[in-house]
Amino acid sequence: MHTAAFADYRSYPLISALATVQALPDQVLVQWADGRWSPFHHPWLRDNCSCPQCVYPVTREQVLEILDVPEDLACSSAQIDHQGCLQVIWQDGHQSRFDPGWLRAHAYDPQSREERRVARAHSRLWDSSLQLPVFEYQAVMDDPQALLQWLLAVRDIGLTQVRGAPTEPGALAAIARRISFIRESNFGVLFNVQSKADADSNAYTAFNLPLHSDLPTRELQPGLQFLHCLVNDAAGGESIFVDGFAIADALRREDPEAFRTLCEIPVEFRNKDRHSDYRCLAPIIALDALGQVAEIRMANFLRGPFDAPPEQMPPLYHAYRSLIALTRQARFRLVRRLEPGQLWCFDNRRTLHARNAFDPASGARHFQGCYIDRDELLSRILVLQR
Amino acid sequence: MHTAAFADYRSYPLISALATVQALPDQVLVQWADGRWSPFHHPWLRDNCSCPQCVYPVTREQVLEILDVPEDLACSSAQIDHQGCLQVIWQDGHQSRFDPGWLRAHAYDPQSREERRVARAHSRLWDSSLQLPVFEYQAVMDDPQALLQWLLAVRDIGLTQVRGAPTEPGALAAIARRISFIRESNFGVLFNVQSKADADSNAYTAFNLPLHSDLPTRELQPGLQFLHCLVNDAAGGESIFVDGFAIADALRREDPEAFRTLCEIPVEFRNKDRHSDYRCLAPIIALDALGQVAEIRMANFLRGPFDAPPEQMPPLYHAYRSLIALTRQARFRLVRRLEPGQLWCFDNRRTLHARNAFDPASGARHFQGCYIDRDELLSRILVLQR
Repeated sequence: MHTAAFADYRSYPLISALATVQALPDQVLVQWADGRWSPFHHPWLRDNCSCPQCVYPVTREQVLEILDVPEDLACSSAQIDHQGCLQVIWQDGHQSRFDPGWLRAHAYDPQSREERRVARAHSRLWDSSLQLPVFEYQAVMDDPQALLQWLLAVRDIGLTQVRGAPTEPGALAAIARRISFIRESNFGVLFNVQSKADADSNAYTAFNLPLHSDLPTRELQPGLQFLHCLVNDAAGGESIFVDGFAIADALRREDPEAFRTLCEIPVEFRNKDRHSDYRCLAPIIALDALGQVAEIRMANFLRGPFDAPPEQMPPLYHAYRSLIALTRQARFRLVRRLEPGQLWCFDNRRTLHARNAFDPASGARHFQGCYIDRDELLSRILVLQR
Repeated sequence: MHTAAFADYRSYPLISALATVQALPDQVLVQWADGRWSPFHHPWLRDNCSCPQCVYPVTREQVLEILDVPEDLACSSAQIDHQGCLQVIWQDGHQSRFDPGWLRAHAYDPQSREERRVARAHSRLWDSSLQLPVFEYQAVMDDPQALLQWLLAVRDIGLTQVRGAPTEPGALAAIARRISFIRESNFGVLFNVQSKADADSNAYTAFNLPLHSDLPTRELQPGLQFLHCLVNDAAGGESIFVDGFAIADALRREDPEAFRTLCEIPVEFRNKDRHSDYRCLAPIIALDALGQVAEIRMANFLRGPFDAPPEQMPPLYHAYRSLIALTRQARFRLVRRLEPGQLWCFDNRRTLHARNAFDPASGARHFQGCYIDRDELLSRILVLQR
């Protein structure tokens, strides 16, 4: 049936059959066999017509723009056909046909919308007691199901480790590309984390680095960060991780005023060298449309001077201190030393990372890193789930 | 002087000397020679200490975290030294010194903040009467000042043309890299816009394409889009541009309710093929913190079914129709045919683009395109302005 043109590489199983349909002046009101009622307004139905005139079958992309039909276009008949589909005949003679599985999956009555909201992926918060999700390199390289399990952990927990990877420089690219192409930055496609005399970032020193996200200086912080250990003979340099969403959640409960301040007052992050000068002004905590914490943007060593009205300066410093104090609490911190052939893959917009100082005189230390955006992670998961 | 550690590759000229400083219990209150008063709270001053203990001079990045000093740290003295700098001695003995040019540039009294707000770059809205900003390929390749003038036009007007470029495939990369690295997508680093039998996007057909932004299916739409004409022997295929900010501005004035609806109700955009499945849920019009239009996200052929509460569906369709109706008005539309060796560079998050249908039987047509993010544009501008 031609609803396949909107099938979107997904299948829409029949959850409940159409029981009755009523053509009202502005909508078709559907009752399902399980008793649910769903309204479908005329423009919504006409807009979603999937016939080959309205949707180009090769690309599955819409050709019709809703402005091509009159604003008051109504249907002259709506009925259930012998295959159980909703068939609508419009006043201008155009006909549309809707598969009941597809229609139910896109129904926008309150109950259907709430079901979809609940079914969405949710972050699982963690603290220092996290049972670290560990995956095997060869399995994620060879087995799409192992790959999927890894990526779901990255999405929902935001911190994973992969073991058994090769230790040649550049090997990281192969596993990253199991997800998608790598996001380049001014630090390169793959970047080398080594102590350098002419460091253009504190990351390239032997200092300890406080908890931070990478590239808060960009409008879109990289979604995923990879850190791959090639050599680690130096004393110190342990990796430290904190679930930024758990920290934000604690702050929201313990000091709601401080939480609100960090959601509302934008802060500038800066990173500059001889060839680049990046600046981004944004709040440290970003909320999504439902008020849930969606992102943490934080790197003290890349922050510019606070710029806020004088009366907001004391509460801003109070809130900022409170956040840093939480990141320093042992209850949130997971500390691990990475060994050669192991790599971290974590949600850079959620999981803050830090490094203890190391002693470059005690031995060599060489990590490589790269970034991939969240869009690519979610796309790969959807393709693997088809 | 050591404030150079925060100098940020910028210079901070002396606008007005420090006249008097007063140490109050929670702040240092400065009066400038031109009469302005600026408060600087103690934590702000301590946080911005640029001595080599607080800022690592090689990277110019901060080592101190404000939590490393007590919340109630006060100064034991504040005075103007013989070089005209603000010198603060803290109760714990630490000393900080602030250059008056730097201090004035970062003062956060209301007048100083308003001056900075006004000095920020502002978009210049345009319509069909736009005098198209045209630049010469060789000049922007060879002359940093010509490059800067081009990039300022891209930033402030959002639509530019470059002429005199080579017509070899791949030549686009060289001029794009005058700004920075290219943002890759699932369509490649450079993408070819040609009519294809197995098109995975309507862009790769000979159809007309309605006004749209590229990749609205990604959380961050590409900032800049380049379209470079190599061959254009086909009849039709003219480029059409509309200033999306001007359209949004017209909608805001003519139908404020519709404007608000498009700012508030998120819409899903989708793009999928055998190897990818991108989805992004976001409003069509995004506002910045000051309520100004910051971004348009729009491609009817990539839009999923609207998903909103039933009572919002009629106003959403009304608003969406109104927006499309505006994009179709001649007063906003700039129409030009691109010839070989010419290229468009435009702000993909502001300037909507469209293409008339062309006749592939009448001759060959081959464009190449690529994307660069807004971060990279703004960084290059700042470096060129140093």
